Amino acid sequence: MVPEAVRSEKSNRRHSRLRRSRLTSFERALASYQRLTKRTLLELLPQGGPPYLYDLVASYPGRASKGLRAALCFATCAALGGNPRQALNSAVAIELFHNAFLIHDDVQDGSYRRRGEPTLFLEHGVPIAVNVGNATNLLGLRRLMENRGLLGPQCTWKIVEETELMMRRSLEGQALELAWIRDNVCELDVKDYLQMCLKKTSWYSFIYPMRIGGLIAQSGRLEPHQFYTFGWYMGAAFQIQDDVLNLAGAYERYGKEIGGDLWEGKRTLMLIHLLQHCSEPQRSELESFLATPRAKRTSASVRRVYELMLRYGSIEYARSASRHLAGAALLEGLKAFRRVPDSKEKRFILEMVLYVVQRDW
Amino acid sequence: MVPEAVRSEKSNRRHSRLRRSRLTSFERALASYQRLTKRTLLELLPQGGPPYLYDLVASYPGRASKGLRAALCFATCAALGGNPRQALNSAVAIELFHNAFLIHDDVQDGSYRRRGEPTLFLEHGVPIAVNVGNATNLLGLRRLMENRGLLGPQCTWKIVEETELMMRRSLEGQALELAWIRDNVCELDVKDYLQMCLKKTSWYSFIYPMRIGGLIAQSGRLEPHQFYTFGWYMGAAFQIQDDVLNLAGAYERYGKEIGGDLWEGKRTLMLIHLLQHCSEPQRSELESFLATPRAKRTSASVRRVYELMLRYGSIEYARSASRHLAGAALLEGLKAFRRVPDSKEKRFILEMVLYVVQRDW
Repeated sequence: MVPEAVRSEKSNRRHSRLRRSRLTSFERALASYQRLTKRTLLELLPQGGPPYLYDLVASYPGRASKGLRAALCFATCAALGGNPRQALNSAVAIELFHNAFLIHDDVQDGSYRRRGEPTLFLEHGVPIAVNVGNATNLLGLRRLMENRGLLGPQCTWKIVEETELMMRRSLEGQALELAWIRDNVCELDVKDYLQMCLKKTSWYSFIYPMRIGGLIAQSGRLEPHQFYTFGWYMGAAFQIQDDVLNLAGAYERYGKEIGGDLWEGKRTLMLIHLLQHCSEPQRSELESFLATPRAKRTSASVRRVYELMLRYGSIEYARSASRHLAGAALLEGLKAFRRVPDSKEKRFILEMVLYVVQRDW
Repeated sequence: MVPEAVRSEKSNRRHSRLRRSRLTSFERALASYQRLTKRTLLELLPQGGPPYLYDLVASYPGRASKGLRAALCFATCAALGGNPRQALNSAVAIELFHNAFLIHDDVQDGSYRRRGEPTLFLEHGVPIAVNVGNATNLLGLRRLMENRGLLGPQCTWKIVEETELMMRRSLEGQALELAWIRDNVCELDVKDYLQMCLKKTSWYSFIYPMRIGGLIAQSGRLEPHQFYTFGWYMGAAFQIQDDVLNLAGAYERYGKEIGGDLWEGKRTLMLIHLLQHCSEPQRSELESFLATPRAKRTSASVRRVYELMLRYGSIEYARSASRHLAGAALLEGLKAFRRVPDSKEKRFILEMVLYVVQRDW
């Protein structure tokens, strides 16, 4: 008789094999980029130091994640003829910047779950989470500085310049979104949402990784606005799908609390659509819901907003917008890479567009 | 009859004239460095952008402050034969880093007052304060990057390297202090305190500004540990005096809430001294006070800790430690600058040692 634990381990292995065999070639490539990035990131973290610092920097990167951003940097470098090994430092830096952003973002939004586990601030308090976020960012910068011996001072400087711009855009995007919540702004349209997305999501998640990959492949040379439009649209499609999953995803896969955005009063495309299409009394009801501090919102009121979104087709609208944006992104991607010879990395980048809107986590 | 407002303005002007005439030459030089730094810092902030971002970056630097760190950078540059105009970008960056640190520190400590006004997080909430702190830091980095045309790529890179190290040390110092509070560590001695000071205060406030001034004066050349010991001791003397003022200063001058450190459970030298010298039952009482979350501490319990500090001479002990450290710093300063010809800037730096322990704000 096979003991329970062994049986379940066996069955897990079988499941895992089954899952692996069902993976698309895109997913296999993504997983392979992710393994390299994650292993290197964790290996290169400083050992020792005071408690609650570098040990906690390892927390978010150690959890399950896709590693889209690092993969995009590697693939762009390779697609443009560069050696992806030369992009390793930068790919690790990109993931560190992303994790730093998540740590602070979770503090700012008061989120409870991240990648299937409690958020850092929930486990260790806001003071330590703020510090760990800062340290994560700084370790990203350190990684980029290590490029100097590998890529030379000129290219490294270009990367630092690009990084400074990316951070500025991200902080501006974050400020925009925080201002909407602070001032309870309800007069928003799709254009406002897309502008916010450009700065808060698209820049650091899509434009920046591609530009860094390009800089490395081309020894520091890059067109001024290369990948801007492609990255913008892909980022917007990604963000909308993320917001849809936050409302309608399965927690086991998605890893954040379902409906968290509603509790936080986040200005998602669904919420903007609903505010534009509901009746006057419903709008007043929504405005007063949004004016209530998060801690005072009730399950019933959150459920009510969700039901209104269903009634007015706001979630379906967002799904469709996400797919349209992915279509536009695909066209822009073909344009951005039209002079680049076909390769598995080029295909990987274009397939990522479809992946970001089809993913369920 | 002179209207009240006009009369009081006149009397303010008279007072301000009187105050100016009573200023020492050190204070006049400090004020002059400060005016230049503050004006340039505020002038160079980005215009426009989303609300609650660059507008709020201006908040702390716009309030009354001494500008010690920028002054130290200018003076070191000049004392070592450099042109202090070349240090302007870096001096502004140093003040920006300092302000960024203060914004996050106020969030982390839950402080209510800074430079005589409400802290940023108290006025605008934690989410916006975290973002503004990040933006302030980034604008500091931007300033340093602007050095490239002025100081050349080599020297600029050295400055960026020095900055990365400074930030690492500061975050480690902050982590140490936060860990003491989180784990309610009560077994601390003077050595622990001085190690924390080195990382949290001395590095960014004293060692770093002098090293940057030195790098600029000497075109990127500097001894590996130059100014380490001098800056460490001066920083420790400064920090202890700061903690004494927090307990025994006048709010109108000092600008932070008096006794705030007690409410926050901050491990000051006074508290460490008290824990080492009080009776066993008093120690248990203190440990349980420190284990209580800030929001649940009472005025009576805070007053009790203060009275115990008076009874055991902890405040007098700290004052005396601060003066001893200033003496040691002065000796180290004379050593650090022994090969540097006499100048008003060299005297300014050495006088700063006395200033940091004699100041009442």
